[in-house]
Amino acid sequence: MELQWTKIFLPEIKELIETKDFKGLRDFLRERHPADIVDILKELTPTERVMSFRLLDKNKISEVFALFEPVEQEELLKQFTEQHAKEILIEMQPDDRTQLFDELPAHVVEKLLKLLPPLERKEANELLNYPDNSAGRIMTPEYVDLQIDMTVAKALEHIRKTGLNRETVYICYIVDETKKLRGVTSLKNIILANPDQLIKDIMNESVLYVHTTDDQEKAAQVVQKYDILAVPVVDNEDRLVGIVTVDDVLDVVQEEVTEDFQKMAGIQTIEEEYFRVGFFKRISNRILWLVILVVAAIISQTILKNYSGVLSSIIALTYFIPMLTGSGGNTGSQSSTLIIRALATGEVKFKDWWKILLRESKVGVTLGLVMGSIAFIIVVITLGEITVALTVGISLCIVVSVGNIVGISIPLFFKFMKLDPAFVSAPLIATLLDATGLIIYFEIARRMLSP
Amino acid sequence: MELQWTKIFLPEIKELIETKDFKGLRDFLRERHPADIVDILKELTPTERVMSFRLLDKNKISEVFALFEPVEQEELLKQFTEQHAKEILIEMQPDDRTQLFDELPAHVVEKLLKLLPPLERKEANELLNYPDNSAGRIMTPEYVDLQIDMTVAKALEHIRKTGLNRETVYICYIVDETKKLRGVTSLKNIILANPDQLIKDIMNESVLYVHTTDDQEKAAQVVQKYDILAVPVVDNEDRLVGIVTVDDVLDVVQEEVTEDFQKMAGIQTIEEEYFRVGFFKRISNRILWLVILVVAAIISQTILKNYSGVLSSIIALTYFIPMLTGSGGNTGSQSSTLIIRALATGEVKFKDWWKILLRESKVGVTLGLVMGSIAFIIVVITLGEITVALTVGISLCIVVSVGNIVGISIPLFFKFMKLDPAFVSAPLIATLLDATGLIIYFEIARRMLSP
Repeated sequence: MELQWTKIFLPEIKELIETKDFKGLRDFLRERHPADIVDILKELTPTERVMSFRLLDKNKISEVFALFEPVEQEELLKQFTEQHAKEILIEMQPDDRTQLFDELPAHVVEKLLKLLPPLERKEANELLNYPDNSAGRIMTPEYVDLQIDMTVAKALEHIRKTGLNRETVYICYIVDETKKLRGVTSLKNIILANPDQLIKDIMNESVLYVHTTDDQEKAAQVVQKYDILAVPVVDNEDRLVGIVTVDDVLDVVQEEVTEDFQKMAGIQTIEEEYFRVGFFKRISNRILWLVILVVAAIISQTILKNYSGVLSSIIALTYFIPMLTGSGGNTGSQSSTLIIRALATGEVKFKDWWKILLRESKVGVTLGLVMGSIAFIIVVITLGEITVALTVGISLCIVVSVGNIVGISIPLFFKFMKLDPAFVSAPLIATLLDATGLIIYFEIARRMLSP
Repeated sequence: MELQWTKIFLPEIKELIETKDFKGLRDFLRERHPADIVDILKELTPTERVMSFRLLDKNKISEVFALFEPVEQEELLKQFTEQHAKEILIEMQPDDRTQLFDELPAHVVEKLLKLLPPLERKEANELLNYPDNSAGRIMTPEYVDLQIDMTVAKALEHIRKTGLNRETVYICYIVDETKKLRGVTSLKNIILANPDQLIKDIMNESVLYVHTTDDQEKAAQVVQKYDILAVPVVDNEDRLVGIVTVDDVLDVVQEEVTEDFQKMAGIQTIEEEYFRVGFFKRISNRILWLVILVVAAIISQTILKNYSGVLSSIIALTYFIPMLTGSGGNTGSQSSTLIIRALATGEVKFKDWWKILLRESKVGVTLGLVMGSIAFIIVVITLGEITVALTVGISLCIVVSVGNIVGISIPLFFKFMKLDPAFVSAPLIATLLDATGLIIYFEIARRMLSP
């Protein structure tokens, strides 16, 4: 089956809609995977989309709905009848429902909560009460729990009866009469065991878990590190209240990566989706670093002012300022990206800092020599002045070598201070190197060009 | 259980080693999860590490070994006896083994392959023959396959017998007598079914799969999109040959992200780990863009030369060149990061290009007005010249607005041309904006400052 088949089928679907062949459309949608139906619906007009929704099988509606992004879910809810919205909300997985409510304005959430039956409403309210980005906020209370004194045969019967609507039946958690988490076992172990054995004899007591208030990243780390399908979440009294599954972990990983990208470009973290972020927030998230860097540019301005004597005597020196500062910044942002990413994935550790600095010094000097030579040739050809060419070439060589080391050192320093190295943004490095580069350039110029 | 407990236990372990309490160490390691053992071993000296390895239980050794990074595995193999290395290699999961062989020099792989029994050697050779980064290269041949005419009871018996060493028993693939993939079912469905039913009556025939030669990214996309635990891999004749599991997908996602980070910093993709990349390769991966940008700086140099008249009459204009070009570059790299990431996660689609441009024009102009005003004030205070301050302020406002739009437009244009937007590196945007910014600045200066 092809991933891109939506495009092939779209004309067919459009035709079914235009000819009002609702039976044909219903049959077509019945055969499709929910993820593919979402792809198709996204290509339709809002009216066509709502109409197609009505044709979906009952049990598929909430699954398809859950796969839309929250902002699109909100749009859809507006177009549904109250009864229709209620049916979908009740059928949704609790963790998907929390994610939707998270994004909606408070008064809409309140209205929707009223549509839910008492039990689901209580559950939804509890989930919404956990802190933002906590494990409690992304967990689902739909797991399989077994009593510690059950036999294997009894456990299997319990799974058969309750497993159908659980997010995973493959990992079973064992609790005692106070709901305290006591152990874990897999469906695989249960199947391989003797039916008369007790669950407590086949369970693993050293069960990994996180707390409801732990950061969602911690839940993600546990799932990734120990290669498990889900991690149980317990409350303050060690009672099992939910699980975080591996598919939620994939989402968390993507979110963290987006955060790192934004930090590195000097943007404060934006959690909402692109089209969801309001005008004021879009400005405020970006303005901080931009203004800091404009103000920081007072430094390079002051440096240039100090050297105005040299500058006005040889105006040609000005021509190469953008190249010098630019190359320093480019080299620095390359080396900082390499090190920030290597620290994030755990490929390098802080304790190897001297090895890293040694390696990068060699790389920096080599890059500097190559680039300096090229710059020398360019200046000789375009300007024809050997002394200026030498000044530019030597300066570039030094600026690139320094830029490379600065790009490595600052993230390492952040790591040493227990700060997130990803906060070292490319703009920050570039601004620092602007000032450094100018001083190097004019000090060399003064020595080379003074009579 | 805490993620960071290694630090707490390390002194204890060091003491066990120093007092040569091998029984104590063995007992301690027996209780630990393989992922935690790896964390501990990484903190030990090479000799201590090899010694601890010898104390591990037989069935745990290969699991622990597989969790090390390939470069560390190579180091370890050198210190093991041939017999020890052989035992570990035989016990390893086939996909972990391929990953190790992938990273080793050809002559080492050849030597290690000879240690394997004929069957495992054949399997390893086959896996190594698939192209780099293909689904075949990361798949494992350890899956559960059921015959299409089996009963549910027979299938369960088959799973009980063969399941123990499979990567996952939770998804079962159904093949016919020619090994052609015919359907899929889950352990959950098998357990819920009547023992006398035929597998072919409970299986899902519309099974998702990828081909051995498909890119590993495609396998990752299928697993993520359809939220499945594994995707089957078939050969050219649609015969089932392996599966790619969700834990491998997490690795692929991390790899892709690293690639995107590197591209955006103007680095050609480096697949090896940080300490693994040789000196020459580290230079060659970075030099291309750096040199292109030095050469491209001829443009800004030419522009400055053209305006040397204005420059030499008011030397103070020079002072603000780094701030102007820097701010343009910073704004552009922010907006390009936002759009590249939103395109990568699918939050925005190319068809919304006009909506994005409209949104970002407003943001850009607002950022420009704020930053231009601040710059105006700074110049008035530091230099005391209103005309120069006005020139700088107005220029900065325009440069930032233009920078914001350029940062958005180029990734969108790449997307339109069906190229990867992540190739739009921050250095590329910065260099383009250097030239644009300078022209804007001096054109305004000429008009404002001419008598």
